[in-house]
Formats: sequence, structure tokens, C-alpha cells
Amino acid sequence: MKKVNIATSSWMQAEGLVKQVLEVVEHIVPVDIQAMQEARTRQDSLTKPQGSLGQLEELSVRLAGMTRKARPRFAQKAVIVLAADHGVAAEGVSAYPQAVTAQMVQNFLAGGAAVNVLARQAGARVVIADLGVCSELPVHPQLLSRKIGNGTHSMTQGAAMSQQETLRAILVGIEIAKDEAQRGLDLVAIGEMGIGNTTAASAIVAAITGCAVTDVTGRGTGIDEEGWRRKVACIEQALTINAPNAADPLDVLAKVGGYEIAGLVGVILGAASLQIPVIMDGFIASVAALVATEFCPLVRSYLVAAHSSVEIGHRVVLERMELMPLLNLHLRLGEGSGAVIAMHLLDDAVALLDEMATFGEAGVSEQTSV
Amino acid sequence: MKKVNIATSSWMQAEGLVKQVLEVVEHIVPVDIQAMQEARTRQDSLTKPQGSLGQLEELSVRLAGMTRKARPRFAQKAVIVLAADHGVAAEGVSAYPQAVTAQMVQNFLAGGAAVNVLARQAGARVVIADLGVCSELPVHPQLLSRKIGNGTHSMTQGAAMSQQETLRAILVGIEIAKDEAQRGLDLVAIGEMGIGNTTAASAIVAAITGCAVTDVTGRGTGIDEEGWRRKVACIEQALTINAPNAADPLDVLAKVGGYEIAGLVGVILGAASLQIPVIMDGFIASVAALVATEFCPLVRSYLVAAHSSVEIGHRVVLERMELMPLLNLHLRLGEGSGAVIAMHLLDDAVALLDEMATFGEAGVSEQTSV
Repeated sequence: MKKVNIATSSWMQAEGLVKQVLEVVEHIVPVDIQAMQEARTRQDSLTKPQGSLGQLEELSVRLAGMTRKARPRFAQKAVIVLAADHGVAAEGVSAYPQAVTAQMVQNFLAGGAAVNVLARQAGARVVIADLGVCSELPVHPQLLSRKIGNGTHSMTQGAAMSQQETLRAILVGIEIAKDEAQRGLDLVAIGEMGIGNTTAASAIVAAITGCAVTDVTGRGTGIDEEGWRRKVACIEQALTINAPNAADPLDVLAKVGGYEIAGLVGVILGAASLQIPVIMDGFIASVAALVATEFCPLVRSYLVAAHSSVEIGHRVVLERMELMPLLNLHLRLGEGSGAVIAMHLLDDAVALLDEMATFGEAGVSEQTSV
Repeated sequence: MKKVNIATSSWMQAEGLVKQVLEVVEHIVPVDIQAMQEARTRQDSLTKPQGSLGQLEELSVRLAGMTRKARPRFAQKAVIVLAADHGVAAEGVSAYPQAVTAQMVQNFLAGGAAVNVLARQAGARVVIADLGVCSELPVHPQLLSRKIGNGTHSMTQGAAMSQQETLRAILVGIEIAKDEAQRGLDLVAIGEMGIGNTTAASAIVAAITGCAVTDVTGRGTGIDEEGWRRKVACIEQALTINAPNAADPLDVLAKVGGYEIAGLVGVILGAASLQIPVIMDGFIASVAALVATEFCPLVRSYLVAAHSSVEIGHRVVLERMELMPLLNLHLRLGEGSGAVIAMHLLDDAVALLDEMATFGEAGVSEQTSV
């Protein structure tokens, strides 16, 4: 297995930026098998029938491997939400006007969005960054202003982003993850906001997996049948015009992705390089994770699938990554909302592993042979 | 729809106890439609695409109906765990020796069991009651000693419980719910511990639904194929010998149930009479809920299905009650563990309803017609 998949010869113009990304990727290592074995041995000694905590047992073992600790706990959680606009929104692919991207960022900053409420419930910080919202956002102490551009170009006319923009957005994401890690971050959820970004996400999935566009394109925030047909047509046109190289995930990202999706790829690479588990949210965040794992397969071991979204393409993405979602609540909001809900389950999983009494400690009889 | 289903003429010998139960049931009323409408109107005004929070939206509306508050919150949560032994355990239907019931109660009291860890995570009190554990348990300030008997009779030889025992166990459950409500309880999870109690639960389901015993009998804590066949044979014998009356749910409960299951029926009736939402745990707790709803159909509106258990009969029970589980984590532990995990989701659901900004408040544009 190659450490990274990139068609180096196509990226000559951006060699310096590629090098910066690869330096981070160098630090991504396989998870710690010994910590996982210790965690599994402990799970099997706890006062419950073996396996009776279902997915939470396996989850706790995976988290031990990622964190390299046999009994991990999470004290500093954050959800990183990246926002940006999409040129393709002008083609009428969303049920909401483009202005909603900026309006929702302000809602995040005011603490009134779903992700804010859920983060308060989970005891997680909310980190908001503007990777390329079309309008000027007011200066705010909680907003990281990291604009790569004023919205992407429309993928129907050519590449959504230049190679340089793509790599700079990835590097911004890496930097945000590293800054948070400096503050002690030990568990991160990822989310996004960007009117039109299910169109970009579906285009990426179609390009990478080869699935038919109609099989990976959903209703987003709620378009009707006609809007859906328009969305499918835009994606098909974008794939024809751009001819993204499926073997070069960053090429796909540049041509039909978006700033916030590229930024999330960076957050994932950065977090994985620091052994910080990443909880994916729904369709778009999972597509960022797909790009990251196609680019660097080792990343997969640091990912937790929070939930199964209503978006039709999400299942394809999770199956491709062989990740089983924890929740199936028919969510389709984004913002990192589902990932933050799942934080409770990760906290529960590691608390059980850490705090439960063993059969020996509690004087409970073990299973008889029956 | 009759308020209660009971074959009164069969219960003449226990008329006084029946009357006490019926007095409580008198206070169970339909949920508050107006609070539900207000909650739904508010949900639709919050800054998200309508319906994008999936099951959490409908859950918040249901909780508004149960609590009669348009914006409910939960400040005093508890999990009530009832323990008792089963005569049928002597037939080798469990992977664990009967002594484990008492040992696990002591583990609960020491705070080392899964339910204790999860309750700490959820901010819930753990209430433990002995409804009929075979051995003497030490006096402990956190243990409610409410023994109805020293384990039930084996259902393979006749009725597991007398009518009086059944009703007294129900009344104990009602009393526990009322005592907790006096302390401010506003959300309750129910759990159980009792070696052999999946046998009782499967027998109840087969009797009430008419399903084949093999279709509703699982592996419990982990018996092998031979143990499973023994378990099925025991249940079939019990149903033949006792001929429980499917139209009289309390008759089924008495003949093939158990003290802790009857106690949970009481907790559910008591909580519903006080408009306190009840989170069911896995198979056994859900079977108690099934008995309660078959006895008093209004109870159903006060129930939340936490998760879908690995136990094969659980799906049958949830479908019969038309309740959709929130989680599917392949749990099969009991103790109320899955119900306590689901508390996070109920807290999230009502926090979203209560705290999110509306489109008007946040100045976010609503959906355009597309």
C-alpha cells in the first residue's frame, strides 16, 4: 500500500505546497496495536457478557488504537466547522439562496444553530472558519478568517478551484487542527456549511467511485424533482468538462470540490498526524474523509462514522471506507451536528472501558460452560 | 378503545390489589396535543431545513406531548433497575449461574456496572430495588428492599407468580415511581437484572403475540445451541401447562413473567400516570412495556424505545407497539444500559427545540421555492 496517492507530474506547478502537505502526511502512522490488545483484554474482563455492549466495545478498542492509550478519555473536545460558497450554487442546485452560507456563519457565531446547542450538550468547543464565503463577514473573536477566495468557480465551467487554492485550503485545515491540538484537543468532530456543497460532494463521489451520478445525488437541503434533475445535469457536465483523475484524489477535489471540503481534508490529515480521532458528520464531511483516505489510506483508522445520513450518496461513501455508522437518526443537516451527537457515544464507550469493574474486582461469577 | 384490558372475573381473589392498580391507571391520560402542536410549530421555525434533524424532531414533539410542555427540559433523570430471580433458571436456560443476580446487584451498589458508568455520563441517578433476589442482600442505603418472594416458581411447573404477588410487584413499581417523582423525577429509564429473565420475557411475547416460541427466543447472555433448545422447550412447556390468557396481559405476566418484570410494569404505569416519559431499555424492559400497553393502551404514548437489541424477540415487541428505536448498537446487556445511553439523545432533542434560534431571530433566509 502506497502512503499517498498523487499524480505527482500533474502537480509540478504547485510543488512547494504539495511538499508542505506531504510533510504532515509523513507523521500519519498506523494505530497502536498493543493499546488495542490491552483495551480488548480489559473489555473481556469487565462485568458483562463479552460482546454485550455491541458496537461500543469495538469503538473503545479502536479509540485506544488511535490515541495509543489502553484506557483513553476525552477532556478537550471540539467541532471544527468550515464554511465556504460554491460557484455552482448559481445554477439553482439548492433550495436555499447563497446568502444563507454567510447568515448561518453568523448564526454559529451567535450560538443559535443546531451545532452550537449540541456542542454545549456534549461539552465541546465550536471552532468556525471562513474558507471562502462570498460576502464579507464581520470581524468576530470566534471566527477564523481564512478566505481562499470568494466562493469557488462553477464546476460546470471548469475547475472549481486551482491546484494552489486546493492545497492552500488543505493547509489551512491542517493549521487549524494543529492550533487546536496546541490547546489540548483530543477529540474532533468535523462539520461544514456551504450552500451548494452537496452538489460538490456528489460530484466527488461519482468521480472517485465511478458510481452513476443519479445514484449518489440526493435532495440536499430539500430541492424538488426538477431541482434534482438540474443538480444531476450540473454534476454530469462538470465531470465531462473537467475529466477528474480518479486515481488522483486531490485532482478530483480541485476540479469538483470546494474550499470547505478541502479544508476538512486538511483537518483530517492534521488530526490523524497528531493521533486525534476524527468524528465524521454526514455526507459532505464524509466525502472530505473519503478524499483524505483515498489520498492517504492510513487516515481511515483515525475516522469514526457518526451517523448514516438521509443523503443517498452517504452509504456509498461509508461502504467504500468500510466504516459502520453509530447512529441512524435520519439526519440531513450538516454543520457537524450528527458528529457532535455521536460524541456522547464515544465518551460512553471510553468511560465504560475505563470505569467498569472487572469480574475479579466485583466478585461476580463468570460465564459457565453451557 | 377500552382504558384497561383485564379479565375481571379471574381476578376476584385479588380484588383489593386490582383496585389499587386501577386507581393509578385512572390518572393516565392522553398526551397533550396542544403542547405537541406548539413544539412542532417551533421546530419548523428553527434555523435548519424542516425535518433535517430527523428522528430528533419527532422525538422532541412527542416529549412535549408527554410532559405537557411546549419546550420541555429534563433536570432530574433516573434509571430504575429492578432485580429478581427466576425459578426457571434451574432448568439451565442461562449462560450464567443464578448467583450472578445478587452479585450484580452488589456491583450496582458499588458503582462498577455498566449502568452506573453510563448514568454518571448522563447525569442520572441509579435507583436499585430487590423485587425478589434469591439470596439475602446486605442492607445498603442505596438498595430498596422490596422482596415479593425468593425468586419466582419455575414456569415449567405452574404459574411463576400468584395473582397477589404479581399485583404487589406492580404496586411496588408504582410506589418507586411515585417516590422518585416526589424527588423531582422528570425522565426515567428502566432496567432489570435477573438470571433467566429473557426466558420469561420470550414466554410473555409468545403468549401475547401468538408468535412461535422459536421466533421470539434468543441467546440471552450467550447460551449455545443446546442451551437455546432447552430454553425453547421450557417456554413451550410453560405455555402449555399455564395456558395464559392473551386477552388478559396481567394473567400472562403472572403465569410466565417475573417479579422484576411486574415491577417494571408498575414503574411504567406510575410514571405514565405522572406524565413522566419512560425510556425502555432492551428486550426485557420492552416486554414489561408491552404488558403495560396491552393492559392500558394509553401508556404507549409515554414510551420511548432506546435501542434495538440483539435479542431476536425485541423487534417483534417494538413493532407490536409501533415504536421506532433511536439506537442500533447491537447491545444485549440489559440493566437499563441502552436506555441510559439514549438519555443523551432525549436531552439533545429537547435542547435543540428549546435553544436553537428561529429564522426570524437569526436573520437567516428561509427556503426558496424551487
